[in-house]
Amino acid sequence: MGILDKVSSPADLKGLDADQLEQLAAEIREFLIQKVSATGGHLGPNLGVVELTIAMHRVFDSPSDPLIFDTGHQAYVHKILTGRRDLFDTLRQKDGLSGYPDRAESPHDWTESSHASASLSYADGLAKAFELTGQVHRHVVALVGDGALTGGMTWEALNNIAAAKKRSLVVVVNDNGRSYSPTIGGLAENLAALRLQPMYDRVMDTGKNALGRMGWVGDRAFQVIHGFKEGVKHTVIPHEMFPELGLKYIGPVDGHDLKQVENALRYAKDYGGPVIVHTVTQKGKGFDPAEQDEADQMHSTGVIDPITGESMAKKTEGAISWTKVFSNRLIDIANEREDVVAITAAMAGPTGLADFAKVHPSRTYDVGIAEQHAVTSAAGLALGGLHPVVAVYSTFLNRAFDQLLMDVALLKLGVTLVLDRAGITGSDGASHNGMWDLSITGIVPGIHVAAPRDARTLELALDRSVAIDDAPTVVRFPKGNAPAAIPAVREEADYDVLFEQGGDGANSGKKVLIVSFGALAAQALAAAQALCDADFSATVVDPHWVIPTSENLLELAQDFDLVVTIEDNGIHGGAGSTLQYELSAAGIDVPVRILGVPQKFLAHASRGEVLEELGLDVDTVVDTVLGYAQKL
Amino acid sequence: MGILDKVSSPADLKGLDADQLEQLAAEIREFLIQKVSATGGHLGPNLGVVELTIAMHRVFDSPSDPLIFDTGHQAYVHKILTGRRDLFDTLRQKDGLSGYPDRAESPHDWTESSHASASLSYADGLAKAFELTGQVHRHVVALVGDGALTGGMTWEALNNIAAAKKRSLVVVVNDNGRSYSPTIGGLAENLAALRLQPMYDRVMDTGKNALGRMGWVGDRAFQVIHGFKEGVKHTVIPHEMFPELGLKYIGPVDGHDLKQVENALRYAKDYGGPVIVHTVTQKGKGFDPAEQDEADQMHSTGVIDPITGESMAKKTEGAISWTKVFSNRLIDIANEREDVVAITAAMAGPTGLADFAKVHPSRTYDVGIAEQHAVTSAAGLALGGLHPVVAVYSTFLNRAFDQLLMDVALLKLGVTLVLDRAGITGSDGASHNGMWDLSITGIVPGIHVAAPRDARTLELALDRSVAIDDAPTVVRFPKGNAPAAIPAVREEADYDVLFEQGGDGANSGKKVLIVSFGALAAQALAAAQALCDADFSATVVDPHWVIPTSENLLELAQDFDLVVTIEDNGIHGGAGSTLQYELSAAGIDVPVRILGVPQKFLAHASRGEVLEELGLDVDTVVDTVLGYAQKL
Repeated sequence: MGILDKVSSPADLKGLDADQLEQLAAEIREFLIQKVSATGGHLGPNLGVVELTIAMHRVFDSPSDPLIFDTGHQAYVHKILTGRRDLFDTLRQKDGLSGYPDRAESPHDWTESSHASASLSYADGLAKAFELTGQVHRHVVALVGDGALTGGMTWEALNNIAAAKKRSLVVVVNDNGRSYSPTIGGLAENLAALRLQPMYDRVMDTGKNALGRMGWVGDRAFQVIHGFKEGVKHTVIPHEMFPELGLKYIGPVDGHDLKQVENALRYAKDYGGPVIVHTVTQKGKGFDPAEQDEADQMHSTGVIDPITGESMAKKTEGAISWTKVFSNRLIDIANEREDVVAITAAMAGPTGLADFAKVHPSRTYDVGIAEQHAVTSAAGLALGGLHPVVAVYSTFLNRAFDQLLMDVALLKLGVTLVLDRAGITGSDGASHNGMWDLSITGIVPGIHVAAPRDARTLELALDRSVAIDDAPTVVRFPKGNAPAAIPAVREEADYDVLFEQGGDGANSGKKVLIVSFGALAAQALAAAQALCDADFSATVVDPHWVIPTSENLLELAQDFDLVVTIEDNGIHGGAGSTLQYELSAAGIDVPVRILGVPQKFLAHASRGEVLEELGLDVDTVVDTVLGYAQKL
Repeated sequence: MGILDKVSSPADLKGLDADQLEQLAAEIREFLIQKVSATGGHLGPNLGVVELTIAMHRVFDSPSDPLIFDTGHQAYVHKILTGRRDLFDTLRQKDGLSGYPDRAESPHDWTESSHASASLSYADGLAKAFELTGQVHRHVVALVGDGALTGGMTWEALNNIAAAKKRSLVVVVNDNGRSYSPTIGGLAENLAALRLQPMYDRVMDTGKNALGRMGWVGDRAFQVIHGFKEGVKHTVIPHEMFPELGLKYIGPVDGHDLKQVENALRYAKDYGGPVIVHTVTQKGKGFDPAEQDEADQMHSTGVIDPITGESMAKKTEGAISWTKVFSNRLIDIANEREDVVAITAAMAGPTGLADFAKVHPSRTYDVGIAEQHAVTSAAGLALGGLHPVVAVYSTFLNRAFDQLLMDVALLKLGVTLVLDRAGITGSDGASHNGMWDLSITGIVPGIHVAAPRDARTLELALDRSVAIDDAPTVVRFPKGNAPAAIPAVREEADYDVLFEQGGDGANSGKKVLIVSFGALAAQALAAAQALCDADFSATVVDPHWVIPTSENLLELAQDFDLVVTIEDNGIHGGAGSTLQYELSAAGIDVPVRILGVPQKFLAHASRGEVLEELGLDVDTVVDTVLGYAQKL
């Protein structure tokens, strides 16, 4: 690693000549392949922005000039160039390097969230601040993918950015032609997933795919904004001002040609107003297995072989992911019911809808990275007599809270939301954890929310949800494999009893009810057993719905000395808090202890590590009861 | 009212000739002026869409063809034409006609929410449903203002609408040149407010204002989408297909020329694919006082004189609105602190920022109807060293929940949100009530949320909020006038004691703590007095912050037999529920009774009527205590 070893800050880049820079780019690619294949991470996106990032750091003066990375997963090269190369062995691990920008890591990192389409808004605010405070020498640079441009936030931002002719703000569009492909992909998706996407089809129809050596497919929406209609050109063209939007446009630029990119950025920097620099890149560039992976280009990988790209993860015999359980069941349901349709916001693969789309292509809609539209267009589909199922990561539902409330629930429409990656996801850090969904869905009048504990209850929850046609319904489940079946010892009308045992010693008169919401049922059961071993009477129940609260469960709770709830969601407005206020509203003043996720942002680590740190485990349940028992 | 009397359904329109239709339009305008001046309501917008609505009902077959009214306040004419003329005396009153589409009123109403920019997404879903179910004869029509097009949802929707060449979906753009003016205005704003708006300024610079007899100022963003660059033309021009977006464009059409509009709509209907019909209208048309009101065109009025347009509301001597208290204080703060800037999402007038802008024009940003961008650009401003204050109606914060959480709080940025119209607003119905904000802000890690009880505590809350530079802060207050001062009898570090009296009779051993959050303090005080009169010991406290919970308050609560909380927010995740789980987390198992808004959508009525119906009154507080006291 000859040159890379000598680069520990952006200043080290500035003296390098063209050959050395080419060499550096090659070394960074090799470094990324070696390191990310060992830890897992966003390999494809970062291989695509090697030259862009080098050029950004040569032309601009970070951190005085803020470089904002949209979605954040394309910041590895930036981290390498800003003194964090040695930390890559710890990527995405507890106490290690974050997979996203992280303000605690470096002054070169300005943002942290992994939610798409926000970078232009940050940039607009920063540029306003620099203008207002007279810091005219500072430039703001946002790097944004063509996919993120389908999000409405970017439209709102561009309207504002264009209005300020004198603010130096450079929007670098990293156009890898993935606008309508899953932005956050797994290894599972394939071309079928891509074909789901209506605008992609349209672009394919026009033969745009043949335009460039890099397989660039273009993005009509983007072209409209920028008045760009001429396909790929391999020279820097300082277009005329685009009077329609007031934004200067430079491009398209070959994003892997360091000199072209650097020239374009220098021109943009000197211009003194808002500029779009349109670069065309190849996701996964330089790593054969990624380049060959047409659907996904190794957007995000686990541990892989650094030569073949094959997954090195051990397969658990017979294990099936929550996602797959959902996907299979939805296909079965749709085989029976013609009115069931599915919607994804550019994530058909990761949410399991790619398989659904193979069976029911005309009943699958990919709307782009556009959660707001996903939910309100689902409302429209429901108004049209269909039953839409919107599959989305839990954390991204936050983007569509208002739409769920005002456009679905107010109209009493039968729309089912399936929230994958609910609860702790871990290695993607604070903004990927699905720890908000029970709190926000619980606000929504008339909603039904289910948190199944295993594969079978996920199937039942989905069945129950699509059967409700006059209110929104939600099924949420975590990342990973569904656990082995957790059977009920007894089934009541609206809850399952998982455990019911009287103690027979010193504490036998002390009756504890553990209400387990969702995926932490195993912990609840083990705790109940431990409590029985300590002579308590313990019962564990799992309600069919988190919301609405089971009246029968309220009645049951009257007979206990203590109610303990456990959930992998924020405590504020979560399942336990809901049960607690419903109990007091019913005049039942049994003491309650709520175990859940505190309202704080959680640093990246494995899911297990995070859960343990949060005390969402057997010992904490037991200790909570013992602590209270002293009062009795 | 010769012709109007004969029109009780869209079918009655179809036999009318051109003269009769002109006459009908005139009668509808007269009817609107008479009726809305007596009840209050959205006069200006509806005067602007008289011809548009007549033409829509003549050309399309409602309700088989859904007519979707964006934001909903422009549906009065639609209501008149669909058999609801006789109900206009009850407009926006309890059990009367809703000021928005209402599915319970008529099969001609397809939606209900008043939040902007959603109509195109509904329409996309409906068109998909009709396509999938083979109902090719049905057309979907969305009427959307140019202002609403600045919302990101419309961009997400247009991307999808354009993708489906065969779905018959007509987007009627009602372009009254108000894109960057307050979409929901009061009578207070003026030209200064208009000049806040950066893109408006730019358009004005180009002299666009001189283009048409109707004062049409155009909207660059809109023009870019539609490739429209040629100013106002007074004939219907079926433009070529716009290959960039795949949407057919017809326009601009004089929206007050019935024949032009009808021709354009017929063309659009027959086309068989997605079409944009661009109409140019004048808000407030036909009512002189509205036409003369350049800033607002009587967007929404109270009771007014039907000739002069002057307000008939009685002025209360010395009364000052919550909005004005905030506005004055923010000006004072900004006079002292150069880093304080203000942001509005197209509502400078109603949120009090128009006055601020007069004093600090360079420190005021109007971002359009774009709450997402408002919040994330505020994050950018904070990253740039400023302290932004985002003033927005409580209910519209829902649109920016994810941005508050991920773009502000995760980065620990000092951004202050000022939520006007929090709590029950009443006559605008379900989607305007600000009953969600405490629930969603309470989810956000590190946030500080204040709900002041009177003018003085609003000032203090704002002072405290802008002093916090490492976390988001929120100040929320209701519609209307701030009440007379409600003094503390004692001030603790983080809460005020408003009432503290021991009983001296039968119930004197029974100690009740009433925790009053925000604007319902008067009710809490009166209830406490009544309880004392019934010999209870009663204490009323008002915490400085709803979130985080005061540790001192938890300690105080230990000494009471019962805690009653009162707030004008949803119970789920609200202030009372927060206090309740914090008490149990601290091991304090005092019984709690929570009075707040149940999780249901509230029909329109006056604020007082709604509060009474909800039991947010003195009697309910007292009854709650008496009910519990029987247990003691």
